[in-house]
Amino acid sequence: MALDNTEKKRDFKVVGTRVERPDGIDKVTGRARYGADMSAPGMLIGRVLRSPHAHAKIVNIDTSKAEALPGVHAVITRKDFEQPHHNSVHILESASQDVVDILDNCMAGEKALYDGHAVAAVAATSAPIARRALKLIDVTYEVLPHVTDVDAAMTPDAPILHEGRAEETAPEGSSGNVMARHEFGHGDIEAGLAKADRIVERTYKTEATHQGYIEPHACLATFGPDGQADLFCCTQGHYMVRNTCASIMGLKQGQLRVTASEIGGGFGGKTTVFLEPVALCLSRKTSRPVKMVMSRSEVLRASGPTASSSIDVRIGMTKDGKITAGFAELRYQGGAYPGSPVEFGAMSGFAPYDLENVKTIGWDVVTNRPKQAAYRAPGAPMAAYAIESAIDELAKGFGLDPLEVRLMNASREGTKASYGPTFPAIGLEATLKAAKDHPHWSAPLGPNQGRGVACGFWFNFGGDTCVTLNVAPDGTINVSEGNPDIGGSRASMSMMAAEELGVPYDQVRTIVADTASLGQNEVTDGSRVTFAVGLATIKAAQAAKQEMCKRAAMTWGIDEDAVVWEDGAAKPAGPNAGEFPPLTIAEIAATASNTGGPIAGHHEANPEGAGVSFATHMVDTEVDPETGYTKIVRYTVFQDAGKAVHPDYVEGQFQGGAAQGIGWALNEEYIYGEDGTLQNAGFLDYRIPVASDLPMIDTVILEIPNPGHPYGVRGVGETSIVPPLAAVSNAVSEAAGVRMTELPMSPPRLLAAMQSK
Amino acid sequence: MALDNTEKKRDFKVVGTRVERPDGIDKVTGRARYGADMSAPGMLIGRVLRSPHAHAKIVNIDTSKAEALPGVHAVITRKDFEQPHHNSVHILESASQDVVDILDNCMAGEKALYDGHAVAAVAATSAPIARRALKLIDVTYEVLPHVTDVDAAMTPDAPILHEGRAEETAPEGSSGNVMARHEFGHGDIEAGLAKADRIVERTYKTEATHQGYIEPHACLATFGPDGQADLFCCTQGHYMVRNTCASIMGLKQGQLRVTASEIGGGFGGKTTVFLEPVALCLSRKTSRPVKMVMSRSEVLRASGPTASSSIDVRIGMTKDGKITAGFAELRYQGGAYPGSPVEFGAMSGFAPYDLENVKTIGWDVVTNRPKQAAYRAPGAPMAAYAIESAIDELAKGFGLDPLEVRLMNASREGTKASYGPTFPAIGLEATLKAAKDHPHWSAPLGPNQGRGVACGFWFNFGGDTCVTLNVAPDGTINVSEGNPDIGGSRASMSMMAAEELGVPYDQVRTIVADTASLGQNEVTDGSRVTFAVGLATIKAAQAAKQEMCKRAAMTWGIDEDAVVWEDGAAKPAGPNAGEFPPLTIAEIAATASNTGGPIAGHHEANPEGAGVSFATHMVDTEVDPETGYTKIVRYTVFQDAGKAVHPDYVEGQFQGGAAQGIGWALNEEYIYGEDGTLQNAGFLDYRIPVASDLPMIDTVILEIPNPGHPYGVRGVGETSIVPPLAAVSNAVSEAAGVRMTELPMSPPRLLAAMQSK
Repeated sequence: MALDNTEKKRDFKVVGTRVERPDGIDKVTGRARYGADMSAPGMLIGRVLRSPHAHAKIVNIDTSKAEALPGVHAVITRKDFEQPHHNSVHILESASQDVVDILDNCMAGEKALYDGHAVAAVAATSAPIARRALKLIDVTYEVLPHVTDVDAAMTPDAPILHEGRAEETAPEGSSGNVMARHEFGHGDIEAGLAKADRIVERTYKTEATHQGYIEPHACLATFGPDGQADLFCCTQGHYMVRNTCASIMGLKQGQLRVTASEIGGGFGGKTTVFLEPVALCLSRKTSRPVKMVMSRSEVLRASGPTASSSIDVRIGMTKDGKITAGFAELRYQGGAYPGSPVEFGAMSGFAPYDLENVKTIGWDVVTNRPKQAAYRAPGAPMAAYAIESAIDELAKGFGLDPLEVRLMNASREGTKASYGPTFPAIGLEATLKAAKDHPHWSAPLGPNQGRGVACGFWFNFGGDTCVTLNVAPDGTINVSEGNPDIGGSRASMSMMAAEELGVPYDQVRTIVADTASLGQNEVTDGSRVTFAVGLATIKAAQAAKQEMCKRAAMTWGIDEDAVVWEDGAAKPAGPNAGEFPPLTIAEIAATASNTGGPIAGHHEANPEGAGVSFATHMVDTEVDPETGYTKIVRYTVFQDAGKAVHPDYVEGQFQGGAAQGIGWALNEEYIYGEDGTLQNAGFLDYRIPVASDLPMIDTVILEIPNPGHPYGVRGVGETSIVPPLAAVSNAVSEAAGVRMTELPMSPPRLLAAMQSK
Repeated sequence: MALDNTEKKRDFKVVGTRVERPDGIDKVTGRARYGADMSAPGMLIGRVLRSPHAHAKIVNIDTSKAEALPGVHAVITRKDFEQPHHNSVHILESASQDVVDILDNCMAGEKALYDGHAVAAVAATSAPIARRALKLIDVTYEVLPHVTDVDAAMTPDAPILHEGRAEETAPEGSSGNVMARHEFGHGDIEAGLAKADRIVERTYKTEATHQGYIEPHACLATFGPDGQADLFCCTQGHYMVRNTCASIMGLKQGQLRVTASEIGGGFGGKTTVFLEPVALCLSRKTSRPVKMVMSRSEVLRASGPTASSSIDVRIGMTKDGKITAGFAELRYQGGAYPGSPVEFGAMSGFAPYDLENVKTIGWDVVTNRPKQAAYRAPGAPMAAYAIESAIDELAKGFGLDPLEVRLMNASREGTKASYGPTFPAIGLEATLKAAKDHPHWSAPLGPNQGRGVACGFWFNFGGDTCVTLNVAPDGTINVSEGNPDIGGSRASMSMMAAEELGVPYDQVRTIVADTASLGQNEVTDGSRVTFAVGLATIKAAQAAKQEMCKRAAMTWGIDEDAVVWEDGAAKPAGPNAGEFPPLTIAEIAATASNTGGPIAGHHEANPEGAGVSFATHMVDTEVDPETGYTKIVRYTVFQDAGKAVHPDYVEGQFQGGAAQGIGWALNEEYIYGEDGTLQNAGFLDYRIPVASDLPMIDTVILEIPNPGHPYGVRGVGETSIVPPLAAVSNAVSEAAGVRMTELPMSPPRLLAAMQSK
């Protein structure tokens, strides 16, 4: 691939190596401080009372008995957020509807909208007292009819969650639970379908799944009577926490200092707030620090799983494999509030293909379920599942090689993407070709085995980013970034800073700064961090290099422009070349006090140029015809990383995305009872794949440089969860001899499908 | 006073007001987290075993019984610092002698050099177990002769602390305990004295005092097996802690992250390390977090009090009050290691006077006492005590007005200072004139009462300084500074940022960032912070303003140079004046993501131009002739603040310095027994003035702008402790009718002086 940027042709010295991760020892020795690991003198324990009903009017909450319990310092309900406070300067009423919805999800207003919805909270001197107090809160509910399925929620007589908020362009006859419509595409679907030799028209359904992060939500809040507040919490975005909580609590953003803890997994699920405003409100009321930690059951009932979906697909193909038209109508329920990721599903599903005629329509629907949160490439896996299943069915129907069909239709540089833009250099074809050339593609299959492939896409983006790089007096480096490290960003930033400065990796320590120490940063999501924060780190390092060249020039008494930076040292160049021995970082830093003070580099930006990312996954499954149990026999991920800064982490992202997608495809699902309550709110019943369920997942890293990044970096975290649902379904469908159109393909469901064949 | 900088003529809107302090509520509600308020899961408690001898060879330390005690995780001695460690990259042997001395003070090597000197430490699961373990450590000492008095330590046969380290130019016949010589001055002393009508020649002595901060030293250390370490501690300079501990522990500075706790007083005493390396060493050995907190007795025995001194003065004066020559020879003992502040004493003592002939010689002496630490204007109060006493005696001997004598001889703009430089605009005369005009000067004195005045001087300085200022999306501001706030710097920085940006004070929150989030900062000492960090804050705010003007220009599509900043908003100017409505910070910040990303301003510098500071103190005392008890009747401080950013804090500094100086003058002293052990290691026996001991201390703030600072700021914290020793002694000498030459003037000492008269 031609590179127009000479920076990218460099021989990397640190980037691309497999250095020791900076958080590894901390995590295995217990030194890492997670959300629940912070305490404060005088701290109280907060706990939440949650609705046992899927949909109910809150007629009355009597907190008097709970308040009278010795050791209870406060009980709060929604009204504690809405009353004016002497130390609140904003008025919640002026907050956006989004913020009001977030608050409503954290603490119910007039109605409880799902099983597990918070309705009150207590702060007490111990957890047992807090639990006892919860039982003394007397809530009078008026139970309402509920709906948890996305299609049912759209039917005309469905119970309505939010009166008066329905989307005007909702489908004729649909209920008032449709909150938004999204449409993308170009060309003429009907004309395209008319050219097809065969059309597949099917409906696919997926169930909601949970990100399954190991660490439950946890935080420690202190709220001073003067309106200065501090929050330590487990989050993917402490600036988001700051800004959201400031709006909810009526604080100035600058007066709320949020520190992100070490994080035990997020995968998108920690990109919003749940406990944080509650803890702040309890702390405001008690003037004491308040710690809150969710149980696993609370995590499952009341944090943010992904949307469940129902998707109609119509795709036409000629008999030699050319896709003539692609259409999808996507219905995602995002729980009790608007904001499902259906827009991303509608944008991404057909992105891998260069189509003349393509159209997607997405409907955002509310149901009596917890408000969804992002889950790795939010919205994309379900859309890819539907579309890649239909393409697979068409290809296999014609007896065509599914990889060849995808190669024939693949998006490439210059393709007008299904969601609008024109692609620059991209790596989809490279992944498909690598898949064809891989031994996996020709490995023999045994009885009851099937092989599936699928492609996946994610946008990636930049977002607000600040990085500060400081040179200590001994010449070692601190990089200060503002994004919680969920996938190795501290290692990657240290590597990029070391690369740029020409120093060894172990000379650099990167930390995640709190909101008062560094400017606004977008959440750690959308596979943006290695790109955007990496770019800012490189620019900050460049600024520091420039400053160090200036100091060297000052020391030598020569012109600043006559100094170059090479191998971690300033060297005289041009007319002065060789005149003085090089000055290393350590030497320049040692005299910095006398040449102008400390040396630093800073960069603030909202960078453009995040490179899109593609992957192709290949999987072999074996189906037990007697039980419907599916075994993953072989799994290989082919993905374009742009430039793999730390290959271990990149492989880990590939493997982790595949593992999560396998769980989603085979076993994971939110199971609601007739009464609308969650039936499997624990890891015994909500079945995430464990190590013994999976083979070693093989990975192939492709490196098609992103022209928008000095080192060619693309985000890698999201894309790897996009193909597995479809890849596994395509493999299982082949192994079982029946086309599966609903996830998860749990043993009972698969057995029933095989038996009904 | 003429101002050459138009910036200084501004009408301040925020600076100079008495806004609410940001740490006040935290401190009175317990929300502030001091050094001992941080904990970590799995934490151990560390405690130190201390020498009971003033001087002893450590023959052997048997730690086996202590190590065998259940609950004990580690016992360390000096060898644990010196052995190589897999996670130590530097070698202690390459450290400077200063660093080796600091380590030796934190953990004794071959000898224990003073009562309280650390000889071993333990880490255990609880404080009681740790205390029990200390008793099981078996140390074999060989007790050596000791010396604790500075003059005795210089005699030829004094016990020697450090063989082979004596200063070559030490006075003939003096012992090997003299570590350094300092000399300042100009002119010809003997020629000057020859012109005098009278010469006073006296020796003055002062005892060591302790800063008496409320909060004992405390820290929490965690040291990862990978050589990444974190330290939370109560300190005046966490960068100093980082750099010193990195040297001692063989760490890269960038790998050690130090966070400063809230601080319960420092006054210079927290400008070095005591427990920090010990806690790190225990954490390294145990792989567990280790918390250490000193008891009050440990603070007094083994932290850093000030030097005691013995000073010979010769000053000549004409009968009309002109000082013809001034000479002082100063001997300070700085405890068991070199580094007493005698150099500052020799530099500062004659600084208030414009003298043709002046000379000071300072001798730095070691004794068997704890290594001294800085104490507010280190070294200056003792020198001022001696010199101001002699001048007072001369003036009164001639029947001259002591204020007039000082005015006649006062340093002013253009004076060649006794320590070298030529003074720019300074405020000594202003303080003397204000003193003469003050009602205190003419208030009637009662029986047994006397009035004293004295002048004082401090240099002030800049030092390495980094400030980052970030604009949140709602337009509120975070200032990130790197200096622990011992005297109101968070308030002052917020005020200066608000002033510069044109926003209300409550839109700004200033925090003290940790060492990994912000670049190198000099210790909070020498009255440098309001000047240096203030200057950097103003420059950072100016950078942010410039960026915001650029964003506004971008929004308006006009040239960046055609935008001005007024009243917290960007306004089109020049040809575009009035063309668009102003854009406020909040408006610019709200769209920052779309105009280039987050908005920040940064400044790194080692600023020149710290303005020197002068004060005149006036005090009335009443002496009880029967008991020798001295009562402070009236006290007024006149000091030049340059510009008083927050007058409450400035007055607090004036009052606090006076109160500490009164304690030093009247009661505070380190009392050593014959055996060289400290006899009064507690606040019952070490007598600090309490509220009921003092009258309201009156203050007069003078504002002679410092031309080196945009707002005219000078440091104010140190100077206020320089005059009180002399002022009180001059007043007591008058009231008692006997010239006192030794401090403290405790009742028994004063009574004895009066009786021997």
